[in-house]
Amino acid sequence: MSQTAIITLTTDFGLNDHFVGAMKGVLLETAPDAQIVDISHAVQPFDILDGALTISQAYTYFPAGTVHMVVVDPGVGTARRPIILTGDRHLFVAPDNGVLSLVYDREERISVRHVTAEHYFLQPRSNTFHGRDIFSPVAAYLAKGVDPERFGEEISDFVRFGVPRPKPVDERTLRGVVLKVDRFGNLITNITPTDVPWLFGSSRPAFKIAIGKGQVARMCSNYSEGGPGEAFGILGSMGFLEIATNRGSAQQLLSAVKGGEVSVVMEGK
Amino acid sequence: MSQTAIITLTTDFGLNDHFVGAMKGVLLETAPDAQIVDISHAVQPFDILDGALTISQAYTYFPAGTVHMVVVDPGVGTARRPIILTGDRHLFVAPDNGVLSLVYDREERISVRHVTAEHYFLQPRSNTFHGRDIFSPVAAYLAKGVDPERFGEEISDFVRFGVPRPKPVDERTLRGVVLKVDRFGNLITNITPTDVPWLFGSSRPAFKIAIGKGQVARMCSNYSEGGPGEAFGILGSMGFLEIATNRGSAQQLLSAVKGGEVSVVMEGK
Amino acid sequence: MSQTAIITLTTDFGLNDHFVGAMKGVLLETAPDAQIVDISHAVQPFDILDGALTISQAYTYFPAGTVHMVVVDPGVGTARRPIILTGDRHLFVAPDNGVLSLVYDREERISVRHVTAEHYFLQPRSNTFHGRDIFSPVAAYLAKGVDPERFGEEISDFVRFGVPRPKPVDERTLRGVVLKVDRFGNLITNITPTDVPWLFGSSRPAFKIAIGKGQVARMCSNYSEGGPGEAFGILGSMGFLEIATNRGSAQQLLSAVKGGEVSVVMEGK
Repeated sequence: MSQTAIITLTTDFGLNDHFVGAMKGVLLETAPDAQIVDISHAVQPFDILDGALTISQAYTYFPAGTVHMVVVDPGVGTARRPIILTGDRHLFVAPDNGVLSLVYDREERISVRHVTAEHYFLQPRSNTFHGRDIFSPVAAYLAKGVDPERFGEEISDFVRFGVPRPKPVDERTLRGVVLKVDRFGNLITNITPTDVPWLFGSSRPAFKIAIGKGQVARMCSNYSEGGPGEAFGILGSMGFLEIATNRGSAQQLLSAVKGGEVSVVMEGK
Repeated sequence: MSQTAIITLTTDFGLNDHFVGAMKGVLLETAPDAQIVDISHAVQPFDILDGALTISQAYTYFPAGTVHMVVVDPGVGTARRPIILTGDRHLFVAPDNGVLSLVYDREERISVRHVTAEHYFLQPRSNTFHGRDIFSPVAAYLAKGVDPERFGEEISDFVRFGVPRPKPVDERTLRGVVLKVDRFGNLITNITPTDVPWLFGSSRPAFKIAIGKGQVARMCSNYSEGGPGEAFGILGSMGFLEIATNRGSAQQLLSAVKGGEVSVVMEGK
Repeated sequence: MSQTAIITLTTDFGLNDHFVGAMKGVLLETAPDAQIVDISHAVQPFDILDGALTISQAYTYFPAGTVHMVVVDPGVGTARRPIILTGDRHLFVAPDNGVLSLVYDREERISVRHVTAEHYFLQPRSNTFHGRDIFSPVAAYLAKGVDPERFGEEISDFVRFGVPRPKPVDERTLRGVVLKVDRFGNLITNITPTDVPWLFGSSRPAFKIAIGKGQVARMCSNYSEGGPGEAFGILGSMGFLEIATNRGSAQQLLSAVKGGEVSVVMEGK
């Protein structure tokens, strides 16, 4: 693995400061041949769920043996534990605050270890930048092939949360939330085809989707089907119901926000 | 080529979501030794001309054999074709919507193929993220040395547009547009030295350039020649007439916008 | 060095244009096996001190032999010199405008050369984009192992400035400035533990810190110690006194700005 080791980075550190550069220096000092790949550094600051969504949507595409470093860490410097997760094909390094929750959900077998082997850490170690001082050196040594067992004991009480699930309001109505708004203004909800199979089927009854200040009454199968200024539903590439508009921002069109409610109501039949 | 294959990315996906990370995972799963280089992910959303300008200004500097992936794709999921362009020294993968138009202009010999060999695509394939499901695996196999012929038939009816050209208004006036505004607020016009040789020559007559809410009456040869708060013309590194100001934003100074008019008027002689 | 050469980039070019992509093309044309690492391209436009802070906080973490290219260059195209700095473990390429000042401060032995060997430059050479035409090819040849002596003569009159230092106002008060505001809204001051040892010691007297429109009366050792809506002081990972707030932006909370004053006043004893 050491020749072509890949290390990915998912953080809320942004790209405006020296943070990401300093971490890459630490990674390369220990693992100079590693290929470092940015997944995103624009996770919403302190937003663990946003970080969890980001890594969960990207990691599965990477080769076996990739080390994923995920640092959204509002509790840096406190007693929250640094952990290593060994999954089916990948390794992960992160704070134990739930940011790997959606990875736990996807993997068949998981082993989580509390990283306590401080001789791998940078010295001196700050209280405010463990991305540089703890997570980077640990990720680099993992990428060099050091066994996860060497870093600390296996634990079972790691922090794990579930993505908010949509709830039935009555027999015709399902209520969910907007999980995120993407670059294009598409509104990604927490509603999947399993939740409302009739909405994604071929003989779809009449329906409406209430979201933000607007309503949606049509499902499309690609963005270009939408008329000018029309908001529509679509099965997005993340596997969720998205509300979108053709060559524009559904967020602006509907004045919808992240965390806002979305209701799917079956009207026909 | 396979040892040091370089794959560049030019998209409108932004860096805030998992999109770019997922594509890099797909690229590295197939071509783990490839060097992946971001040209820009901040092409204006859905803006094919902006994407065409960006790739056309960067690709020539890369080594022979580089694979350039260009994904500005408002028609994703429709019948628009994925294509491979073989140019003089480089390969390109893109949707057939004109985003390679300025590359076609620069290359001596071009061969364009319609990518139809679906066994190279990711399975299952979404209707909304072909950057991940089609363009990335195709780029990775090209980087590994698979012959473009293996992906589909050559076509000649690919989409190609021209950059808007400046037009003479009268014998003293040329009217162009602002093609783009760069990071520093410089206004890049579509006017070249070939269009107004007298403006870039050594014995320049008096002139004015009307742009936004202001006027320009001087050409400089570097940014620092400009006085405080002065807007001036300059031959920019893109090969176009730029309107700039010293250590400031000409866009703000002149209240000019992308797509706005610019008129060059010869006054002297 | 040539196999695993690392080249880092620190610029104010942003990521929205083709600038960074074009530079990477030039680097890879000459040094195709180099690993290119972005430190930041979001240095404030034309802000040499901001660039100096960014590189100084990141470069020490990189392996010996790394080539750091730093391009914040408002004087591009003028007589300002391109330089190569050979430090204790790293090489640097930059304009001679002071952007390496904080590197000079950190290194034991330095050798600065004026780059005059134009045969290494790109031809033709623009007056407005030396990042592409001069600094990139020079950095690439350095990464390939060309000796710094080959590029030009050693100089001693290079531009060097000092970071603004905090000043005592009276025997109880020290006045400094906000050097930068980071991604999270933390206010990084120019005050270090050496300037006010009593503030960072264990038996701290009562104190207040006036900054922006607010006051701070407590030091914390990690961000999570802060109460909701409380601004506090902390020793940040850059080695300076930072004013922060727990899971929020101290900049917004205090209406403070970059360059603004900060006063530390000892009240107790």
